[in-house]
Amino acid sequence: MISQSATSKLLQILGKEHLLTDTRDLGPFSHDATNQDFFPDAVAFPENADQISKILRLANEERFPVIPRGAGSGMSGGAVAVQGGLVLSTDRLNRILLIDEENLLVKVEPGVVTAHLQEEVEKRGLFYPPDPASLNISTIGGNVAECAGGPRAVKYGVTRDYVMGLTVVLPTGEIIATGVETAKGVVGYDLTRLIVGSEGTLAVIVEIILRLIPKPEMKRTMLIRFSDIEASARCVSQIIKEKIIPTTIEFMDSLSVECVRDQVPLELPQGESLLLLIELDGDQDRINRDARRIEALCRQTGVLEFRFAKNEWEAEELWKARRNLSPSLQRLRPHKINQDVVVPRSRLADFMVAISGIGQRYALPIPCFGHAGDGNIHVNIMFHNDRIDEAKRAHQALQEILRLTLDLRGTLSGEHGVGISKKPYIGMEIAPSALDLMRKIKKAFDPNGILNPGKIFDESPIR
Amino acid sequence: MISQSATSKLLQILGKEHLLTDTRDLGPFSHDATNQDFFPDAVAFPENADQISKILRLANEERFPVIPRGAGSGMSGGAVAVQGGLVLSTDRLNRILLIDEENLLVKVEPGVVTAHLQEEVEKRGLFYPPDPASLNISTIGGNVAECAGGPRAVKYGVTRDYVMGLTVVLPTGEIIATGVETAKGVVGYDLTRLIVGSEGTLAVIVEIILRLIPKPEMKRTMLIRFSDIEASARCVSQIIKEKIIPTTIEFMDSLSVECVRDQVPLELPQGESLLLLIELDGDQDRINRDARRIEALCRQTGVLEFRFAKNEWEAEELWKARRNLSPSLQRLRPHKINQDVVVPRSRLADFMVAISGIGQRYALPIPCFGHAGDGNIHVNIMFHNDRIDEAKRAHQALQEILRLTLDLRGTLSGEHGVGISKKPYIGMEIAPSALDLMRKIKKAFDPNGILNPGKIFDESPIR
Repeated sequence: MISQSATSKLLQILGKEHLLTDTRDLGPFSHDATNQDFFPDAVAFPENADQISKILRLANEERFPVIPRGAGSGMSGGAVAVQGGLVLSTDRLNRILLIDEENLLVKVEPGVVTAHLQEEVEKRGLFYPPDPASLNISTIGGNVAECAGGPRAVKYGVTRDYVMGLTVVLPTGEIIATGVETAKGVVGYDLTRLIVGSEGTLAVIVEIILRLIPKPEMKRTMLIRFSDIEASARCVSQIIKEKIIPTTIEFMDSLSVECVRDQVPLELPQGESLLLLIELDGDQDRINRDARRIEALCRQTGVLEFRFAKNEWEAEELWKARRNLSPSLQRLRPHKINQDVVVPRSRLADFMVAISGIGQRYALPIPCFGHAGDGNIHVNIMFHNDRIDEAKRAHQALQEILRLTLDLRGTLSGEHGVGISKKPYIGMEIAPSALDLMRKIKKAFDPNGILNPGKIFDESPIR
Repeated sequence: MISQSATSKLLQILGKEHLLTDTRDLGPFSHDATNQDFFPDAVAFPENADQISKILRLANEERFPVIPRGAGSGMSGGAVAVQGGLVLSTDRLNRILLIDEENLLVKVEPGVVTAHLQEEVEKRGLFYPPDPASLNISTIGGNVAECAGGPRAVKYGVTRDYVMGLTVVLPTGEIIATGVETAKGVVGYDLTRLIVGSEGTLAVIVEIILRLIPKPEMKRTMLIRFSDIEASARCVSQIIKEKIIPTTIEFMDSLSVECVRDQVPLELPQGESLLLLIELDGDQDRINRDARRIEALCRQTGVLEFRFAKNEWEAEELWKARRNLSPSLQRLRPHKINQDVVVPRSRLADFMVAISGIGQRYALPIPCFGHAGDGNIHVNIMFHNDRIDEAKRAHQALQEILRLTLDLRGTLSGEHGVGISKKPYIGMEIAPSALDLMRKIKKAFDPNGILNPGKIFDESPIR
């Protein structure tokens, strides 16, 4: 709870147009893409680091939680107020401050929408690769806080690989710059990458310096249809083993394909069929050569169909269907447990076969799709939440899937983060002494635990 | 000082063949490439994580410093025992544990020599890009501890960009795994990248998982000669602005060129001449096209000479001369202060012109060479240490150069680290509240300050 006097001080800092306290206004800020509701006490829309610093100092005095929030498109509950308190929206921090073509970098505020940034830099022949599926609404600040990935990570890596430096407000109110504006820099501990992926628990990001690369000349999309999981996984392994690194290698299993069948701009014959969508980018010569090699490999591994997208429109329609997959799955069951586990690429076939067995054993549809190229599979356990037995089976299946992932030397989250969704399971992956160290690091940043409490791991509650 | 009883316990842990305590044996372990002598009390050669854990637990009980050490080729004093104590050599932890061609990764122990790892993976058509000049002796463990760079960073990034996960022994003795074996992973705080570049002050690295990439098909070296600094810096800026990212763009100023003139396999006319050494790698078509574009740009910016290395031998000789530059500078003066500052690429010309002015004002030769492609310049202030006035001028010039670097929005170290060499100056770059946070992080890892004390920043001395 935020006290009356603290609320008055917030009003002084922000002005009344930039603070919401009426419960009727708080709804949109009470959930993210995990669809669980936690109402904050208030929502602040600061316009600069100085206001944020004042808010955090006040939160320390008054001991109320502060929850940084971008677009609220996160998949693990990073932006929700599980203990109430003040949601701190980055809506007004939405400027692209600098696009530096000589040094190949941008400086942006956290509220800039990912797709908007990409368009702006692409106009100048530059490229910011990370492409989470929500990029049309997600903000760069949220991407940095969660270390967002996306299909292109196969070739280009994830958000972490592009963050050069940050300006952040520490939970105790100090404004500090981390990292560098140069291509290299090793002075002091790497606070930048410690804050990237810390899910809004260590600092509030107010400025971001991102590295850019030259925009690839062109791209080409291939669609490959298989009749069984193992053949498709073997094909992915073969491509990488042949030292071809496509921009993306996306995978949809049969259940997923059924859900977007009517959105795909081509005839898909009825019956079992899995799709790989592969994109290559770069120089024309290289693309053509790699495409020919991929085609040859596919034909060796028992492909049903191999075709190139005829034109840009068709490629874009295919990608749109892929991006719409997550919501489309609701045709199978109204509720889902969505996990973004990762396994080593070479274990993909084992993983997919085991998942199919788990689905059969628990009598639940478990459509899988995602980034086969980096082993990052979105596993969706579909169920009716109001059928108690089904919900129970779903949670048992989840446990088994997480155990399977770790047994295959994988990780529980490739890009969504832990937040509240995976917090109960973090101990399966991270050893107690490592978790203990993370708690101490949290304490070093945030002695009173006011910043985004209740996320990632349990800490001492706010006193 | 290590007590008698602690020494006996160390002997029990290690066996007497693997502990040096005789002063006559300690010489080689008393310095690194900074050429300052600090004798440790003993040197340990553990063979596994378990022994290291026991040593660190003992060090906590007995409060003696432990200094991890690879090859001792570091440039900032990271591996020297400034407060005495136990040097912990990684000599026996020298195995390549796994080269995984399907998942494009290696697992290695920290004592593996960088060049050896590179050869082994290149035999399999894979590539580990970071290439510090000392790669023929430096170890991967040291590279990770310092976040080593090298000429290829322009295109491929630095050590940090290749570390996927670590096994480390915490200063308090716990053995933990950090990071992942998969292409993506965001579970918990990023301890991996916090430890990378922490200069042996946060944990002892015992195993490293490194990402690999496919080996480029071929490479091509160009040598470009300019008559003045500004033209060469402008040329570098133009290349990047044209969206060409060479593998390396190395720079040598006239003073540097003079020092390796007799090692370069070609006729260099007398008189002012600066060299750029550019390497392209990748597909033949792309290399040829980029080479032609670079040639055209160079001719526009007033080049004296543009030529391709005739063959691999000539290219290798050029690169050898480049790698030998650092020792060759002693022809100018016996002592040097060597700084690896970085400025934004676009400020390179301003920086070089200013350095030349500083050299004239202090009447000292300041040869500069290094990685122009990423703005990381090795500035060498040459002087006679025994001429008091000259030594004083050298240190004044250093202050001015560091100030200049930061004024141009650069950083004090691109790849050498802070250690003891840059510790007096860290406050020029890192704000007090950020330094304070780093001290708290250090304390979270190492409550008694036993691990590599006296490096990077001042902390409370060991009680």
